[in-house]
Amino acid sequence: MKNNITIKDVAKQAGVSISTVSRVINDSKPVTDEVKQKVLDVIKETGYIPNPLARSLVTKKSQLIGVIVPEVSDSFVNEILNGIEEVAKMYDYDILLANTYSDKEQELKSINLLRAKQVEGIVMISWIVEQEHINYMQNCGIPATYISKTARDYDIYTVSTSNKKATFDMTKYLIDKGHEKIAFIMTSKDDTILEMERLAGYEEALEQNNIKLDKNLIKYGGTEYENGYQSMKELLDEGIIPHAAFVTGDEAAIGAINAICDAGYRVPEDISVAGFNDVKIAKMYKPKLTTVHQPLYDMGAVAIRMVIKLINKEILDNKKVELPYKIIDRESVIERK
Amino acid sequence: MKNNITIKDVAKQAGVSISTVSRVINDSKPVTDEVKQKVLDVIKETGYIPNPLARSLVTKKSQLIGVIVPEVSDSFVNEILNGIEEVAKMYDYDILLANTYSDKEQELKSINLLRAKQVEGIVMISWIVEQEHINYMQNCGIPATYISKTARDYDIYTVSTSNKKATFDMTKYLIDKGHEKIAFIMTSKDDTILEMERLAGYEEALEQNNIKLDKNLIKYGGTEYENGYQSMKELLDEGIIPHAAFVTGDEAAIGAINAICDAGYRVPEDISVAGFNDVKIAKMYKPKLTTVHQPLYDMGAVAIRMVIKLINKEILDNKKVELPYKIIDRESVIERK
Repeated sequence: MKNNITIKDVAKQAGVSISTVSRVINDSKPVTDEVKQKVLDVIKETGYIPNPLARSLVTKKSQLIGVIVPEVSDSFVNEILNGIEEVAKMYDYDILLANTYSDKEQELKSINLLRAKQVEGIVMISWIVEQEHINYMQNCGIPATYISKTARDYDIYTVSTSNKKATFDMTKYLIDKGHEKIAFIMTSKDDTILEMERLAGYEEALEQNNIKLDKNLIKYGGTEYENGYQSMKELLDEGIIPHAAFVTGDEAAIGAINAICDAGYRVPEDISVAGFNDVKIAKMYKPKLTTVHQPLYDMGAVAIRMVIKLINKEILDNKKVELPYKIIDRESVIERK
Repeated sequence: MKNNITIKDVAKQAGVSISTVSRVINDSKPVTDEVKQKVLDVIKETGYIPNPLARSLVTKKSQLIGVIVPEVSDSFVNEILNGIEEVAKMYDYDILLANTYSDKEQELKSINLLRAKQVEGIVMISWIVEQEHINYMQNCGIPATYISKTARDYDIYTVSTSNKKATFDMTKYLIDKGHEKIAFIMTSKDDTILEMERLAGYEEALEQNNIKLDKNLIKYGGTEYENGYQSMKELLDEGIIPHAAFVTGDEAAIGAINAICDAGYRVPEDISVAGFNDVKIAKMYKPKLTTVHQPLYDMGAVAIRMVIKLINKEILDNKKVELPYKIIDRESVIERK
């Protein structure tokens, strides 16, 4: 059942010339609506696949953008992807996705793979971007934007939010609600600008409100539910019962809530918990999670818009775009009595 | 910064012949570990990209499998993808993903797109598969397996679980816990084998236990949180307070729990709630969700294994594989007093 339909067959069946079929396929020159519909109908019926190479020779474009993601099942990644895909559609680009499980070799391989598949640009989402990734990408000569915790450490196109200020604001928000003993559970311990900024935001908010920094209240885990659970459990096991916990990732924050409840305390009555990102589950959970809304959808949308501009050789005002965040006041943080 | 490195450059820099580089790239003939490492190092340094066409001419294989998904952010899809990707890796296949938002035109386009990108096979995950999808795929002459609610309606390769028996068993489980007035909230209303089987499973369990079927207890919504919330809210607004609700999707089940709580009832004390699928959030939620475990990871793993066998022209014993399910007893269902 191999498809051996050629452009000639399509032309014959539609009763038009080969060049008319080519025009319809490549949208290269005007054709009447009627003729266009006829050709499209025949293409659909016959299952004709335009030869992509021949087609690229005419349009010189694959209309494909590659997206590399560290973990397709991560909710942070999902929401960025939604923004990427919707804007891609608006500009008539198709997306090829490569999932890497944060494996560096796989990431490098994916850059090559997508390049070999003639993508015109790449959006790279990676927890950690290193110089080697950037070299690979530049060797390919392909326009790229990055969304990564470490992207701001390099001279590359990147989209992010102001993490220091967001962390400062959420810490201050907790302080304003009467909490002083605020656990700070970070979703990683890397020596990146991002982590340092977040820690600085937390520390500054304490300082400005004359609360002494207690290093025992700071934990480093990972982004997942289990990581947050574990970090919170360690704190409680150490006999530290904070007024509030600020966890820099929503799934980990929900893990922390579960650890608190399993230890016999209530959220938010005994301990308030705040998250970061505002992913889908933040609204579904009970109590609904008070969190920092990162505009993930917009981050994806802006990242791909930047790539498309780079593909079209438009000038970008700024290599590093920072998008605004918001504190979302839901149910997991209350005033301390 | 275009990459103009050729295989000749790599050979020169590594101090070996072109055919040795070709052997390393294509793994076609033995090369000593030392030489291999040297060549790989140079490839990495130079960012050389093997010409995929030239390469296919040697290996005659792209080592690529395409996966079409309806919604990359859906947790059901995510867990299937994990199984697909891991087995792909074992067999040294790369995956190209196409996300379709369940849009039929986009699905048909994706089949063509992946085919044009020389994938050797396709795993298609789609809520609804229709004859047109299957025709498209067959016109491409490409090996394919399907995971879809409607896949069992057609003569194609498909992986699923025994839905009728699973629905029967969960309904019986609820009855055994003393519940009689059991709301049945389905995640769609389509005239598919799947939906009919599920309804039949529910009805048979009631009948065998001498419980009269009450059609007012049956609702049709969608797979999302909001759909479950809405369906449950409608029931309660109609003055129907069931003993238990069986929702055929976990996110929708969590929506139902929220609707129940917002109406002033408790789960599971006043109303027990059971889900279906056992996605990640089922374990994270409070109360942890009692649900039917579908082996989603395994479904993905089997689906891609089948495609790889089809690619290799191995004989498959069975076009339709059914995998076992399990009832997972957590916290959202309790004995009725």
